[in-house]
Amino acid sequence: MHTFVNRHIGPTEQETKEMLRIIGVDSLDKLIDETVPAAIRLKTDLDLGKPLSEQELLEHFHDLSLKNKLFKSYIGCGYYGTYTPTVILRNIMENPGWYTQYTPYQAEISQGRLEALLNYQTVIVDLTGLPVANASLLDEGTAAAEAMHVLFAARRPEKKNANKFFVSDECLPQTIDVLRTRTEPIGVELLVGDWKKLELTDDIFGLLVQYPTCDGEIYDYKNFFHKAHTKGIYCVAAADILSLTLLVPPGEFGADIAVGSAQRFGVPMGYGGPHAAYFACKDDFRRLMPGRIIGVSIDRTGNKALRMALQTREQHIRREKATSNICTAQVLLAIMAGMYCVYHGPQGVKSIAERVHGLASRLNNGLKLLGYKQLNSSYFDTLKIDAGSKDKLKELRKKFEDAGINLRYIDEQHIGISADETTTDADVDELLNIFGEGKSVPASLNGKGLPETLKRASGYLQHPVFNVHHSETEMLRYMKKLENKDLSLNASMIPLGSCTMKLNATTEMIPITWHKFGSLHPFIPVEQAEGYSEIFKGLESALSAIAGLPAVSLQPNSGAQGEYSGLMVIREYHKSRGEGTRNVVLIPASAHGTNPASAVMAGMKVVVVKTMEHGDIDVADLKSKAEQFKDTLGALMVTYPSTHGVFEESIMDICRIIHDNGGQVYMDGANLNAQVGLTNPGLIGADVCHINLHKTFCIPHGGGGPGMGPIAVAEHLAAFLPGNPVIKTGGEKAIHAVSAAPWGSSSILLISYAYILMMGGEGLTLATKYAILNANYLKAKLDKYFPVLYTGKHGRAAHEMILDTRDFKHTSGVEVGDIAKRLMDYSFHAPTVSFPVPGTLMVEPTESEPKYELDRFCEAMISIYNEIKEIEAGKSDKTDNLLKNAPHTAMEISSDEWKHPYSRNKAAFPVERLRENKFWPPVARVDDAYGDRNFVCACEPIESYAEETLS
Amino acid sequence: MHTFVNRHIGPTEQETKEMLRIIGVDSLDKLIDETVPAAIRLKTDLDLGKPLSEQELLEHFHDLSLKNKLFKSYIGCGYYGTYTPTVILRNIMENPGWYTQYTPYQAEISQGRLEALLNYQTVIVDLTGLPVANASLLDEGTAAAEAMHVLFAARRPEKKNANKFFVSDECLPQTIDVLRTRTEPIGVELLVGDWKKLELTDDIFGLLVQYPTCDGEIYDYKNFFHKAHTKGIYCVAAADILSLTLLVPPGEFGADIAVGSAQRFGVPMGYGGPHAAYFACKDDFRRLMPGRIIGVSIDRTGNKALRMALQTREQHIRREKATSNICTAQVLLAIMAGMYCVYHGPQGVKSIAERVHGLASRLNNGLKLLGYKQLNSSYFDTLKIDAGSKDKLKELRKKFEDAGINLRYIDEQHIGISADETTTDADVDELLNIFGEGKSVPASLNGKGLPETLKRASGYLQHPVFNVHHSETEMLRYMKKLENKDLSLNASMIPLGSCTMKLNATTEMIPITWHKFGSLHPFIPVEQAEGYSEIFKGLESALSAIAGLPAVSLQPNSGAQGEYSGLMVIREYHKSRGEGTRNVVLIPASAHGTNPASAVMAGMKVVVVKTMEHGDIDVADLKSKAEQFKDTLGALMVTYPSTHGVFEESIMDICRIIHDNGGQVYMDGANLNAQVGLTNPGLIGADVCHINLHKTFCIPHGGGGPGMGPIAVAEHLAAFLPGNPVIKTGGEKAIHAVSAAPWGSSSILLISYAYILMMGGEGLTLATKYAILNANYLKAKLDKYFPVLYTGKHGRAAHEMILDTRDFKHTSGVEVGDIAKRLMDYSFHAPTVSFPVPGTLMVEPTESEPKYELDRFCEAMISIYNEIKEIEAGKSDKTDNLLKNAPHTAMEISSDEWKHPYSRNKAAFPVERLRENKFWPPVARVDDAYGDRNFVCACEPIESYAEETLS
Repeated sequence: MHTFVNRHIGPTEQETKEMLRIIGVDSLDKLIDETVPAAIRLKTDLDLGKPLSEQELLEHFHDLSLKNKLFKSYIGCGYYGTYTPTVILRNIMENPGWYTQYTPYQAEISQGRLEALLNYQTVIVDLTGLPVANASLLDEGTAAAEAMHVLFAARRPEKKNANKFFVSDECLPQTIDVLRTRTEPIGVELLVGDWKKLELTDDIFGLLVQYPTCDGEIYDYKNFFHKAHTKGIYCVAAADILSLTLLVPPGEFGADIAVGSAQRFGVPMGYGGPHAAYFACKDDFRRLMPGRIIGVSIDRTGNKALRMALQTREQHIRREKATSNICTAQVLLAIMAGMYCVYHGPQGVKSIAERVHGLASRLNNGLKLLGYKQLNSSYFDTLKIDAGSKDKLKELRKKFEDAGINLRYIDEQHIGISADETTTDADVDELLNIFGEGKSVPASLNGKGLPETLKRASGYLQHPVFNVHHSETEMLRYMKKLENKDLSLNASMIPLGSCTMKLNATTEMIPITWHKFGSLHPFIPVEQAEGYSEIFKGLESALSAIAGLPAVSLQPNSGAQGEYSGLMVIREYHKSRGEGTRNVVLIPASAHGTNPASAVMAGMKVVVVKTMEHGDIDVADLKSKAEQFKDTLGALMVTYPSTHGVFEESIMDICRIIHDNGGQVYMDGANLNAQVGLTNPGLIGADVCHINLHKTFCIPHGGGGPGMGPIAVAEHLAAFLPGNPVIKTGGEKAIHAVSAAPWGSSSILLISYAYILMMGGEGLTLATKYAILNANYLKAKLDKYFPVLYTGKHGRAAHEMILDTRDFKHTSGVEVGDIAKRLMDYSFHAPTVSFPVPGTLMVEPTESEPKYELDRFCEAMISIYNEIKEIEAGKSDKTDNLLKNAPHTAMEISSDEWKHPYSRNKAAFPVERLRENKFWPPVARVDDAYGDRNFVCACEPIESYAEETLS
Repeated sequence: MHTFVNRHIGPTEQETKEMLRIIGVDSLDKLIDETVPAAIRLKTDLDLGKPLSEQELLEHFHDLSLKNKLFKSYIGCGYYGTYTPTVILRNIMENPGWYTQYTPYQAEISQGRLEALLNYQTVIVDLTGLPVANASLLDEGTAAAEAMHVLFAARRPEKKNANKFFVSDECLPQTIDVLRTRTEPIGVELLVGDWKKLELTDDIFGLLVQYPTCDGEIYDYKNFFHKAHTKGIYCVAAADILSLTLLVPPGEFGADIAVGSAQRFGVPMGYGGPHAAYFACKDDFRRLMPGRIIGVSIDRTGNKALRMALQTREQHIRREKATSNICTAQVLLAIMAGMYCVYHGPQGVKSIAERVHGLASRLNNGLKLLGYKQLNSSYFDTLKIDAGSKDKLKELRKKFEDAGINLRYIDEQHIGISADETTTDADVDELLNIFGEGKSVPASLNGKGLPETLKRASGYLQHPVFNVHHSETEMLRYMKKLENKDLSLNASMIPLGSCTMKLNATTEMIPITWHKFGSLHPFIPVEQAEGYSEIFKGLESALSAIAGLPAVSLQPNSGAQGEYSGLMVIREYHKSRGEGTRNVVLIPASAHGTNPASAVMAGMKVVVVKTMEHGDIDVADLKSKAEQFKDTLGALMVTYPSTHGVFEESIMDICRIIHDNGGQVYMDGANLNAQVGLTNPGLIGADVCHINLHKTFCIPHGGGGPGMGPIAVAEHLAAFLPGNPVIKTGGEKAIHAVSAAPWGSSSILLISYAYILMMGGEGLTLATKYAILNANYLKAKLDKYFPVLYTGKHGRAAHEMILDTRDFKHTSGVEVGDIAKRLMDYSFHAPTVSFPVPGTLMVEPTESEPKYELDRFCEAMISIYNEIKEIEAGKSDKTDNLLKNAPHTAMEISSDEWKHPYSRNKAAFPVERLRENKFWPPVARVDDAYGDRNFVCACEPIESYAEETLS
């Protein structure tokens, strides 16, 4: 009886009856019939096999894990073995208090992870020597592409026609491939070659080099960058983060932007991800920076408070004017990398780097004694070895593979070997032993590989946070202190419309930190990753069935990446048919901001389609525009159910119109949670859809990442699914890589697959029904206080709804933001604010919320409504009231002077239930304007912390 | 540089210098020389091999885990396979927020685990049908022994000479063996036999039966118990907890006491433990009940608040008048078992029981068809099968073992098979297949084994807590809500004198939840547990080196059990030399209360030795008493350094005096953390010592258990170390079992072994030095405010110290309890209150506390001192003041009316640092008297929760 489905879905059977009664409908199926148009309903049940119990799932995944072979890998190429300090592993990575957090838009109840991200940014600023860093990007490859975009947008007036971007052929192959993908659609020509031979022509606007290179060489780019700058060319350095503890940082040799991966700071390789990529730049580029920057500000009471200084999210994305569609970061992983530095401190990370370099040096010297030629004149952790001949390489390769060792076979004669934090002296002995074929070398081998001129002199990580938490007790308390400042799903529902904050079940999370899943390098031979292969195959097949589209790519590692990939596949399809001119994309006005941004990045032209008063797409307008652009129509981008929370009846007509005019239909999967098992994109008429695994399929939001955005496509598009330059994947006519790793953030795919296996088709369908039930229950209880803006033809909401709060501004001066902040006093995270309709709240409860929590939310909302009524009635002050001053901190509540016209008790405990369980916001309302005027994106100088350290 | 030692020890090198300066000593070694008497210092360094890094440790343990073979076990006998719901596994068992909690003596900051324990007690009360349950005991065997003790103490006047206790020979063998150990020393004769043939004579005061029996038979004991009662004989039923969901409970067939194990409610077998044993009784026996009972009371403001109703701890133990030396419970495991019921609910646990029974029935019916004779006329989960002949059994056994299956081989012809929660239909098929040797049986087999007359009709688990948390989201939030009410080591130091609340490092905790350690049944053939064997051997050898005593028993599963075992071994030694009359135990007045209680249980007479004014043992008195009792002197029990926190100079003389008079020296290991590597019990002159692994060796306190108390003994005592009736362990002349499992709570031994392997001898020695440094630093900073009561001859404290707070009562009316409660307002857990000296605080910081935390503690204590001074000076009210009203809750602080003469701010934020990080006590001071007057030890009736559920 207690199947996983019952654990995942909130309401019990008894509660369901009560909820249906309140909604005023006889049965759940009746409610669904009234909600989802009959025309698009599936005729057969979603069949995904018999669901597994939680124990069966764990056993199954254990069996799969055994099919992965854990070789010792020295492949490098941007991915390195590292030890996650166990105190961080257990208390952050495996802790729902951290991983179930939402993106920190509500700064007041996100101070913990904002501080953790500020630490991370400080690490990046310090190590790169550049003044501004963001809170992470998806991977090193896309971070490099983002840098290219920024520089393209930042071209100086005299360069406004420059359209060439140079990338050194010694960069990581996956970075070069992602750049290929990202340059061409926007009209940038990518030059790949030897930087030493590059002619710095006027048509080049920017360039990228690797430091140290993929093969391990360390070049001094100072003069090169200087020369480029004199030509108005911007310079990007992709730099290895660990090496920067020993090497002169990019900021000191003139880089405008530095990018790279923070993976080797304690984040498992996970067969490709998720990891945090870093991005740092000169202050000139701050406003163009992709992603999010955490900044320091103050709160209403003047205390220090953190918040996102650049809120680039769906609704903040500058639509078609955007230079990037990035909205997710890799928050959880950036936090881990930052905490790695908090734990190890400057001396600790430096000594790790020195150890790694020492091992590489010992290997280098040993190889020399054995008669091998090592080709790097200087190196940090990576050697390039000439095997002498093809045959010799083959012979060596066989021996290494027999010994369970992966090296990097650069070409038929050259071998790359990278040491890392997990490499030991015994490992070097083993390598030398195989290379030496019995010949022995002395144990002690002197000589180092760092170039004298590039030895780092400047300090880093000098802020106290990196210098006082080195005992485990202190580290544990620090992380717990931060965790306690944040509201996560373990405390309250987070009813974020369009973000589907459902249960991230423990059993889904357990396998991802098993070594046999976590410690695999993405570029190992696929035969060593059969467990993963089986999971990919199973997940692709399930997602395909769910989407009603036959082919899937798991590569896109965010929803926005999925959009971009889908559009690029459509583009390639048109090109393959000689219709490369089809570049117009129709996008409804209510679309997520990422849609137009993705379209622009894919080289398309955005044409906006009107929305009618009742919220639906204006089909007439759509039709007229489709016909107007019928020769150049590339695609429609449409979200379904709509971002207004409605199953539009006209959707099939809409798809037909697009197809009739030669276009493809791209369906944004943000709202897929309302479709699974009841209908599907393929049936509706989509050619492509992306699937936010971090929404519908239970990957936790991690405080703002990781996410995954695989795409499912129709048969005619399958051939174009994205590839990877190192490991074969994608279609036969694959487009270039959209993400650095072949299958994106592989390790978290396990979560979604586990969810699907435990739910089965019937369970997934039931979940969809409950998502709709829970939403309509909220609607039934709240509609008379906060009118629901849009509904379907039977008056039903889909899985989410927009609550109209716009009138209050006129009647009481209360704005939607005030309601959002006041909800914090009730221990709630606000719903989505002002998207898609300004001044409103969009609420999505998901199927996982129990009735108890839905009732608690309604109680809070109704209580707030009454508080507004008191302002309207003149019983409360217009400006000094419960809403305008929200949230209230414990410190303010307990201050000796209380000057507000309302009581402390009403401020802190407006409903009885809070007396038993209250989450106290750690800061009062954050002053965004102050933060914008006083931009600080790294830990403040030591002086401002002086009062925190004891005399 | 960042070795584990540096992670474990709090202060940095730089801070150490500063601390030494404040103490006024040149170096750490100088401090140690001034603290530890030269005569007892070790001449050589403690050598335990090269320490392992955390990663090496995990790899080593992984290798060891692979040496354990995970057969499918159907052995039963009180241990069963079970699934720990992963949400409980991750968020309780693997969560420092729960496992680092201390015993809930400070009720106000322990409300979370108190509620969790109340849930557990409710489970036991409901399932046993008896009105009172305690918060768990160590294991089923000792719980049975405790029942025997209670009944012996509770004999009716007419039975005051009755000295026989009957135990059915169908009870668990380990229970019978523990009863053998525990009866004889106190003069009780144990009768073992067939209950159906028992003559209920006048000299029998109590009896114990098993329900269902070890072999699986279910008897109706109603008439038997009735008859016994008419003869004034008390009746105990040891009952299987899962079976009670389907069977008439002991309370309904007349049991006075029920005992058993809650292991199969979600607690891994762990090769023997730790698990929670339950104990429930009629109200008549409540005051004699061993262990702790959680009770419901109210706080100062009238709100509901929980607390321990019976505080049986070291200092509360009624010394030589005690009937039990129990002070630890198995809190963490009891909480898990209780949460298992919160998660599954009444229908869930019942359906698990029905499934298990169904599988046993199917097996039974299949065996019948295959021609086997099953001997139980009725059964729940366990069958007794006649193999037909010895040879046939041998042949079958071979086949089962080849198939990786463990059955219970009862004797040469009979086989026991127990189904459990993890058994599947496929498992039954496999068993039948082997039994059938190819013959097949139909898949569907009807017929059940429960006797009609014993089918349970009464309900259970009807309280809302067991009926509303079945979705994982709700369960997660419930557990988190409780966790947030408790202060654990992740928030603050817990400077409990004599309890050594040091770091429980994550890496030490990780292996214990690996299946290859967690899922082993304690009675499997030892060849299947070679990983464990190696760990036991390694740990024994290390503990032996540390204690300076050559032989070790890992069996005692608490410190008090260790004491008892040590005394029993001494007793056996004297007996073996024809000196069985040596039964006097000298115990200093300052000893832990468990010492005399253990002595009495071991059949010894306690003679108290005086303490001198400066705190040391009065050697003259000791000598005179040793000589007075020289013919009957059995032992001295002594704690070293003393419970006064001093290294007494005379300790070697004391040991010599005892030996000279024919006695043995028993050293209480409570303060071993001040000895490791500097001195040791063997060197000092002890013959036995117990080692609290949950103090010195990092097993977390788990909120009041589990603990482990192995003993180390001199060569001449080794032969008597305790055995086990099923698995061979202990010395050649082993005493009977002291705990149910052969090696006590095996799985948590990994923690201590991991700690030792990562610290090495040098690291452990350094830890001891830092324990002394940290204590003396506190002394240096606090002495002028709170005089330190006792010190060594150079004025140094040992690793802990007593702060004298007695005078304040006269000067200001402030009592030590007020200071303890006020510390909560500063986000601290109080030190030990009123032990060993009434009216004082005993503080032990341990080596793991960083200087930051020590300073924070001093700041709080000095601030409290100043608050007291204000009362003394008449600036604060004598009764309505910060201390008397402490702790202050957020609700009180934010109430609209504030009637206290001091400010809210001073109440809640007396020091600046709290503004950044404050732990709010969830309730105000608990009213113990109210709780005692209104005894409630299970969840309150539903009505009192009415306001919590939503309309």
